[in-house]
Amino acid sequence: MAEKGVLIVVSGFSGAGKGTIVKRIVEENSNYALSISMTTREPREGEVEGKSYFFVSKERFEEAISNGELVEYANYVGNYYGTPRAYVDRMISQGRDVILEIEMQGAIQVKTRFPDAVLIFVTPPDAEELKRRLMSRGTEDEATVNKRMHRAFEESAFVDRYDYLLINDDLDRCVEELHMLIEASHHVPGCSAGLLKKINEQLQIYA
Amino acid sequence: MAEKGVLIVVSGFSGAGKGTIVKRIVEENSNYALSISMTTREPREGEVEGKSYFFVSKERFEEAISNGELVEYANYVGNYYGTPRAYVDRMISQGRDVILEIEMQGAIQVKTRFPDAVLIFVTPPDAEELKRRLMSRGTEDEATVNKRMHRAFEESAFVDRYDYLLINDDLDRCVEELHMLIEASHHVPGCSAGLLKKINEQLQIYA
Repeated sequence: MAEKGVLIVVSGFSGAGKGTIVKRIVEENSNYALSISMTTREPREGEVEGKSYFFVSKERFEEAISNGELVEYANYVGNYYGTPRAYVDRMISQGRDVILEIEMQGAIQVKTRFPDAVLIFVTPPDAEELKRRLMSRGTEDEATVNKRMHRAFEESAFVDRYDYLLINDDLDRCVEELHMLIEASHHVPGCSAGLLKKINEQLQIYA
Repeated sequence: MAEKGVLIVVSGFSGAGKGTIVKRIVEENSNYALSISMTTREPREGEVEGKSYFFVSKERFEEAISNGELVEYANYVGNYYGTPRAYVDRMISQGRDVILEIEMQGAIQVKTRFPDAVLIFVTPPDAEELKRRLMSRGTEDEATVNKRMHRAFEESAFVDRYDYLLINDDLDRCVEELHMLIEASHHVPGCSAGLLKKINEQLQIYA
């Protein structure tokens, strides 16, 4: 029913499983378009320009910032990462839903610039489970895991800035619920602005 | 997953079919509780106290207003109509979803006093269809229908105050979509405030 797609922002505690969930939903629905980030960091082996990332110079990235070309951006460990607005706009106007998997800080930036964006936060059912998942990756030492838990503590105070909460205690159900939340998002009035305008115009003869 | 129920407010243009839709969803899901209004108008034949309405005197109603006992109220053709807060609060704390079928003005009052309420607006796909439905009732003359169309014109400018839009061009699909929107509403962070508080407390050791 929607005339336009919706911009869906997925964030979550590190270790909440958002990467897995996003990968699954994009595979399951070809109407979803995964947003591609722009970055100044070097490509890693196997990464493809325009698919993994848009790889650009620091100068080009800063130009994009000052031109307002980015929906959100951040600087991590000396490198810029951001979301080009052009791709998001193009997909949405084609009726496709754009999925953006980003950090909380970026998510809040997106909502400011894109009030119709729908923010979804993924959390495990409790903190023990979060720690268990981070430890079971086996790729990080305890100090790093604790750093991530500290960040989760900080983020936990801002979850109410999100539109929806997704509790990941069962992957299949969580994926199903995310599809449902995206479907619900198509019902926000902003997605049917054209239809509402048409009805308002048709009713003007009764004004 | 939700700890509490949600308060769902359904409005729509007169003739949009909201009464039929609400009747259907309440029949189909026993977890939904239809809110019962308080009114000062005389009971009509067959109406049951505490089921159709809570019938009260003008004095009692005005006392309820000044005590803040009502989620919203309005005065139509000399009679008061309002929604008692106690019933809504009790049902929601029992985990039941409360459905409120009210006019736009009341809906906006509810959102102010109950920010977690979810407002859903029902519209036919176009204005011709609205007029056709109003005429086909056969109970109103053209002047009354035109008055309703005028009101629809006025309301059409405020539909974006609602959380969700429901386009009623197929009753079965519309009912299904309303169930889905209520399910989605359980995912607003306010519905899981207890879980979020617990996670925040568990994470405090990493602060």
